[in-house]
Amino acid sequence: MGEFDLIKRYFTRPARRAVLGVGDDCALWAPTAGQQWAISSDMLVEGRHFVSTVAPERLGHKALAVNLSDLAACGATPRAFTLALALPRVDAGFLEGFARGLFALADAHDIELIGGDTTAGPLNICITVFGEVPPGQALLRSGARAGDAIYVSGSLGDARLALEVLRGALSLPGSGFDAARLAMEMPQPRLALGQALRGIASSAVDVSDGFLGDLGHILHRSGVGARLQVDGLPRSALLAGLAPALQRQFGLSGGDDYELAFTAPASARDAVQAAAAQAGVAVTQVGTIEADPGVRLLDARGQVLPNVYGSFDHFKS
Amino acid sequence: MGEFDLIKRYFTRPARRAVLGVGDDCALWAPTAGQQWAISSDMLVEGRHFVSTVAPERLGHKALAVNLSDLAACGATPRAFTLALALPRVDAGFLEGFARGLFALADAHDIELIGGDTTAGPLNICITVFGEVPPGQALLRSGARAGDAIYVSGSLGDARLALEVLRGALSLPGSGFDAARLAMEMPQPRLALGQALRGIASSAVDVSDGFLGDLGHILHRSGVGARLQVDGLPRSALLAGLAPALQRQFGLSGGDDYELAFTAPASARDAVQAAAAQAGVAVTQVGTIEADPGVRLLDARGQVLPNVYGSFDHFKS
Repeated sequence: MGEFDLIKRYFTRPARRAVLGVGDDCALWAPTAGQQWAISSDMLVEGRHFVSTVAPERLGHKALAVNLSDLAACGATPRAFTLALALPRVDAGFLEGFARGLFALADAHDIELIGGDTTAGPLNICITVFGEVPPGQALLRSGARAGDAIYVSGSLGDARLALEVLRGALSLPGSGFDAARLAMEMPQPRLALGQALRGIASSAVDVSDGFLGDLGHILHRSGVGARLQVDGLPRSALLAGLAPALQRQFGLSGGDDYELAFTAPASARDAVQAAAAQAGVAVTQVGTIEADPGVRLLDARGQVLPNVYGSFDHFKS
Repeated sequence: MGEFDLIKRYFTRPARRAVLGVGDDCALWAPTAGQQWAISSDMLVEGRHFVSTVAPERLGHKALAVNLSDLAACGATPRAFTLALALPRVDAGFLEGFARGLFALADAHDIELIGGDTTAGPLNICITVFGEVPPGQALLRSGARAGDAIYVSGSLGDARLALEVLRGALSLPGSGFDAARLAMEMPQPRLALGQALRGIASSAVDVSDGFLGDLGHILHRSGVGARLQVDGLPRSALLAGLAPALQRQFGLSGGDDYELAFTAPASARDAVQAAAAQAGVAVTQVGTIEADPGVRLLDARGQVLPNVYGSFDHFKS
């Protein structure tokens, strides 16, 4: 099968909202009057963002999910995406599974594939997503203020736990590993939460490289610091079985969580919980923004912990 | 240097038209009221789209140029782009050159980099471009009608000539090779021509995989055929020194030309030439659209030539 047959067979579906979808030099889209466009692009590489043994369907899901997570962090409503794919070979089983996982998530969020590219090369998946957001209402990294509460959605650390089991550094019973691997390979972008937090949250970021590192982007761009209750980080029952030091490490700097970290004024506490309930996602307050730069980590007894936790960096890890 | 330092150092410049540029989860853009968005994404892989010895500055130029060429083929005005980059290592010399070539072309067309991603991995460059076009005025592949004239801009085949010299299949004197290599590595997207052809051309496509194959997209989507004067294809002085069979092959199916192939009613001949003059690019009529499907290739004496010319396919070549 050649390049154009491949695109036609696996990646061409009738345009819905698009004026023109896959198949011309460009896609055409008529933006909704009065809305801003939120745009984000993520590239996934084997061995960096996924393991070679991942099921193609889950890889299709994850490739789109990590992009949608960026739209979620801005409070945008997703509309469309492009897909560029480098493949070592044309493998029908891989492509069928990949497309199934990709489109299942796309359909769940009512967005459409409008264009892209395929080429031969080392496996690489590059997706660019487009969403809409009312002017001035996007959640940014720069809006956190001293006194704001710091929240995180869902739970942290399971994806890292799965990775360490795959690496052979830890072991889990089969059902536990399946659950952790599901967290790693099928992250759920928090789109409903992001949209519900518009007008409530003062800042937001998606947790992709580890909570502490991603919160650091908020602190840096907002010019503030933070105090965190480390042992109050939400974690799954799976993680709760580990030694406390590992729980802290995976929660603070695990990576691949795709939860939202965000801040909101103390007065917005009820509104935050109402938004979380509306979105069907738990959110947990894990700390407070402070004027002093830097991060203060506190244990359950209020003792300061040394900050030995790094953030994931693709050129350092 | 880590991932975030790299982005900051080489790829972050102040936002101009963007509401929000590089540095948050998403970029934000306020579309011009009443305009449609034209969107295209291309992925470049070493050994497929460029040779390992390409100067980084030229690679930066080419990566953006091939994307802009898609906007040109739609008649869109480019506005912004995202860049996702997988790099085997952080190489300051490479990145400085790449960014210089990339931004030089971006500045020449008044567009800005609004976001993207960097990761470690086999060298891969994925750019997504955004342009604007008035509703109903985009040039599509589907509008060619029997009787329309077929045109191509600039000249064809020099990029393929350079490739064959690099492969050792042909030789050229040094200055000739430099010129051919410039065509291969520094294509000039025909944006001014594409915009000038709005309302004049009935269809258009950019010539990236070879003239015959890309014209084939127009024929397929328009449900028509074509008659081509093969020896009338525009070619450079470089190419004119080759054997006639090679001239035909490189002109018809060379690849990497990034010229525009387009059609226009016979009555629009003067308007086409005026658009070409306005854009400062030569355009040459090379054939005629016919109702019968398929392509008839004619030599200078009007004799039918066998069609032995393929199109570039990343999974077949």
